Amino acid sequence: MSFYRINVSDITVKEEELPKSYQLLGARGLVDSIIASEVDPTCDPLGPKNKMVFATGLFAGTSVPSSSRTSVGTKSPLTGGLKESSAGGPGGLYLGKLGVKAIIIEGAPKDNQWHYLNIDKEGVQLLPAGELIGLGCYDACKKLQRIHGKKSSIFVIGQAGEKKMLAANIAATDKEGVPTRQFGRGGVGAVMGAKHIKAVVINGTDMDYIPALDKELAKKCIKKFAQGLLKNPVSGNALPKYGTAVLVNIINSIGALPTRNFSSGAFEEVSQISGETMTELQIKRGGKVGHACTPGCVIRCSNIYVDKDGSEITGGFEYESVCLLGSNLGIGNLDDIAYLNRLCDDFGLDTIEVGAALGIAMEAGILPFGDVAAAKEAIQSIARGDILGKVLGQGAKITGQVLGINRIPVVKGQAMAAYDPRGIKGMGAIYAVTPMGADHTAGPSCTTFIKAKPEEQVLLAKEYHIKATALDNTGLCRFCSYAVFNDAETFNALLDIIKSYLQIEVTSEDFWNWGKSILQIEMDFNQKAGFTPESNRIPEYMHLEKLSPKWEVFDITNEELDSILEF
Amino acid sequence: MSFYRINVSDITVKEEELPKSYQLLGARGLVDSIIASEVDPTCDPLGPKNKMVFATGLFAGTSVPSSSRTSVGTKSPLTGGLKESSAGGPGGLYLGKLGVKAIIIEGAPKDNQWHYLNIDKEGVQLLPAGELIGLGCYDACKKLQRIHGKKSSIFVIGQAGEKKMLAANIAATDKEGVPTRQFGRGGVGAVMGAKHIKAVVINGTDMDYIPALDKELAKKCIKKFAQGLLKNPVSGNALPKYGTAVLVNIINSIGALPTRNFSSGAFEEVSQISGETMTELQIKRGGKVGHACTPGCVIRCSNIYVDKDGSEITGGFEYESVCLLGSNLGIGNLDDIAYLNRLCDDFGLDTIEVGAALGIAMEAGILPFGDVAAAKEAIQSIARGDILGKVLGQGAKITGQVLGINRIPVVKGQAMAAYDPRGIKGMGAIYAVTPMGADHTAGPSCTTFIKAKPEEQVLLAKEYHIKATALDNTGLCRFCSYAVFNDAETFNALLDIIKSYLQIEVTSEDFWNWGKSILQIEMDFNQKAGFTPESNRIPEYMHLEKLSPKWEVFDITNEELDSILEF
Repeated sequence: MSFYRINVSDITVKEEELPKSYQLLGARGLVDSIIASEVDPTCDPLGPKNKMVFATGLFAGTSVPSSSRTSVGTKSPLTGGLKESSAGGPGGLYLGKLGVKAIIIEGAPKDNQWHYLNIDKEGVQLLPAGELIGLGCYDACKKLQRIHGKKSSIFVIGQAGEKKMLAANIAATDKEGVPTRQFGRGGVGAVMGAKHIKAVVINGTDMDYIPALDKELAKKCIKKFAQGLLKNPVSGNALPKYGTAVLVNIINSIGALPTRNFSSGAFEEVSQISGETMTELQIKRGGKVGHACTPGCVIRCSNIYVDKDGSEITGGFEYESVCLLGSNLGIGNLDDIAYLNRLCDDFGLDTIEVGAALGIAMEAGILPFGDVAAAKEAIQSIARGDILGKVLGQGAKITGQVLGINRIPVVKGQAMAAYDPRGIKGMGAIYAVTPMGADHTAGPSCTTFIKAKPEEQVLLAKEYHIKATALDNTGLCRFCSYAVFNDAETFNALLDIIKSYLQIEVTSEDFWNWGKSILQIEMDFNQKAGFTPESNRIPEYMHLEKLSPKWEVFDITNEELDSILEF
Repeated sequence: MSFYRINVSDITVKEEELPKSYQLLGARGLVDSIIASEVDPTCDPLGPKNKMVFATGLFAGTSVPSSSRTSVGTKSPLTGGLKESSAGGPGGLYLGKLGVKAIIIEGAPKDNQWHYLNIDKEGVQLLPAGELIGLGCYDACKKLQRIHGKKSSIFVIGQAGEKKMLAANIAATDKEGVPTRQFGRGGVGAVMGAKHIKAVVINGTDMDYIPALDKELAKKCIKKFAQGLLKNPVSGNALPKYGTAVLVNIINSIGALPTRNFSSGAFEEVSQISGETMTELQIKRGGKVGHACTPGCVIRCSNIYVDKDGSEITGGFEYESVCLLGSNLGIGNLDDIAYLNRLCDDFGLDTIEVGAALGIAMEAGILPFGDVAAAKEAIQSIARGDILGKVLGQGAKITGQVLGINRIPVVKGQAMAAYDPRGIKGMGAIYAVTPMGADHTAGPSCTTFIKAKPEEQVLLAKEYHIKATALDNTGLCRFCSYAVFNDAETFNALLDIIKSYLQIEVTSEDFWNWGKSILQIEMDFNQKAGFTPESNRIPEYMHLEKLSPKWEVFDITNEELDSILEF
């Protein structure tokens, strides 16, 4: 396996050997290690000294199911800290098959020189981006697939990333070649824009899976692992059936569904935007539920959402987007929300960050809650770069500051996902402490917190903050966690998978310790960047303002929050 | 002497005795002590838990010359740290005569209830602000002076403060009752807006000076002190003759005059905007130079700037404003700059913060460098609250973030004054380390750095950072520092003034130690608020990008910066 080092100052590509010490690092662990060892934590994230790294997991390119997510790592311009964001889609699978473990992008581009990367069996090339510049992700992918083949997998930025906006994500194409999967958080698209890299094109379609070193063992444990995922009621039933939007009704019922800029935890039109409604509608219209974003995924939580005439509006239409672009804006129609989701995907915008920013703009009276046309126009203004769009495109925090709203649902500058901390307190604790900024994927699943008692929230946050981070080192999809965290057989199968592919014995303790060492890298980086315990807090108003309909405040103490990071 | 505690939640005014332990605290030392003991450093600066304090110096209300500046202290919404900002004008003199040492404003106002404070011999009253809301500072003062008398001294916020904008200052009226003096920095006007206090009206005109306890000694040492100020070549000659704009030519000649968003250190039209030109023009037109902002000031650095027909455009037209609204915007006509200054004073905007923000907007191409009409329109858009105005009104940092410009000349979120750190390095060191954010008044005068060698800059910054802070405890004008810092006779006269008024013997060592203890309060507060040594840094681009015409970068190391705070 190799690294590729791309320098945009002098337009060079260099291949380097994977250091032996990096053997057990993948995905989050690998991007973290590279960024922490090569990037000054105090540097300007959009300046010449920052770098960005794409890296695959431990089993990329193999037939291990749900194992080929790709991570991107960088100093985040949104949070100011070390950031890892990951996406599904077949890109990681192909990178693995091509023997590419990581791509490091560094340097300062010359004015007006934009490039894209093309990666295939011949190696890695930097090519002029030419007419791709200014295109949205959908058009850019079509153009690149005309050049490099229909089956090219692509990581691409839209207008938002080109403009270095802090809400900019990096889109990744799904199995069908459509840019519906996202490296969503932390403004990673802005860093790619600052490096003047429009896209990464990956062609590894017709290549074989990477074989295991112990094929017998691999065959057995992969089977057991897949079975574990399938027999779990969430990853084997709820997710394929309803997608992540299965959470809409659940989170609404506990009073934690962000509604109208986090001013209520329940939405009166919830039945119109639930996962159940979405599935019913899409089965009727001929859309797809139970769709796998990546070949070989057994969970298949994704979807392709079509309009009443059967034409695709969007795909990978997730719970977070349904809420942040729906209930949080007072919008209760799935087709409308799907269209807003499509716009964000096309322009290369994080739906969570943009939804939170729009909620604030609505509270400020810039546009009315529930006004779909105004919301579309506002998102389009981001792509155009009008002044209002420039504000919204910087995300929730700056939007709140500019518009004079101090109900800003962020931690470390990053917008909260679709769980109000007052309604699901353990999730608030995770938002607060994770080095990533308010991030719903940094701990256990929300259902773990929902099932637990109030006094268990902090301990669960502590345990699963570490476990979730350990899992992020593998490149496995987060939705493997239901089985991996709770079912010893599935977990042991995973340890056997490591053994069969890497010929290294990893104990259960070793495995979970990965979480601690990765978190330590991130916390050290962030501390050098200027973070303090005060960075690990929930906004003041959520401690003071009771959330309807349960009328709770966020009441986990600062000392309890700090205790989560003592390990 | 008493405190008044104003609670805007329940609209109450409470008089409290001055604690004995506060006897030697004035101005910066007093506001710092109150804020640090009463405000949670982690609170939302614009939320219910923040407070703001107006306080006078040690000799307020006495006949000690140049001694009646007023300080305001609060947790700054711009920097996030403890902030002290001070202003001249007779307000402090009257507060002293009325026996008011400090006014503490606290609580959370009810929606749409705005008040102003009226302070006179009868005491302190909270009155409904009614029709004052929405007015600029000029009109608000006229209206208040019609009610409370022509000679009322007023602290007032304009539209920017009402809108809680981070570039909002608090204006203070000068001797003539015109709001040309400013509590300029840190967004203190936004906190007053958040408390829904439009103005503080002070009537102490016809009252006697506070007598000294040792009248004989006072008479002698006040005379000696005044003589010291007058025989100093800066406070006795350059400042009364040319005002602070005397610095335009000096700073331009060393290549440190911020020009076109800090992209050059020299301005080709400098001769048109110099202090010498201003004085010549104003003498010809019948304006005023050598104007005292406060009765009893012997330095008289202020001015009243009139147009070619002799009508007043602005007053208190300082070097910082001439540069930030002039050379920094590529504008080389004093009348134009004076008009921009007037707009800022009227709307209640810090000229430094707004000038820096406009420079960034010009670099971003939102308006052209040198376009006066566009600059006027942009400042007017702040008062109106248009989207562009909402951005600019938040100051330089947010303007840069929104417009995607990463050449942002700020420290701790506050814009740099009119000295580019690359051209005058000691000043850069002061910008970096002072708990106040980039602040030119936190160390020695710029001329001290200009006269010194490169290797002396850090040590001078260290010594005078403490000395300047000590002086800020007295309520004396900063321009006393030329004589106080450099002339033993004047300094000893000052110690005798303390003795004659407070009957406390203060040694030279005691006096300078005030600086250390005040800085310690500020640093402790800021640390609890989340500041780290990384907060004490000059922006990356100033380390990398050479400044014409001397082609220097800012090269004081982080270790040297840190050493300034070791005392």
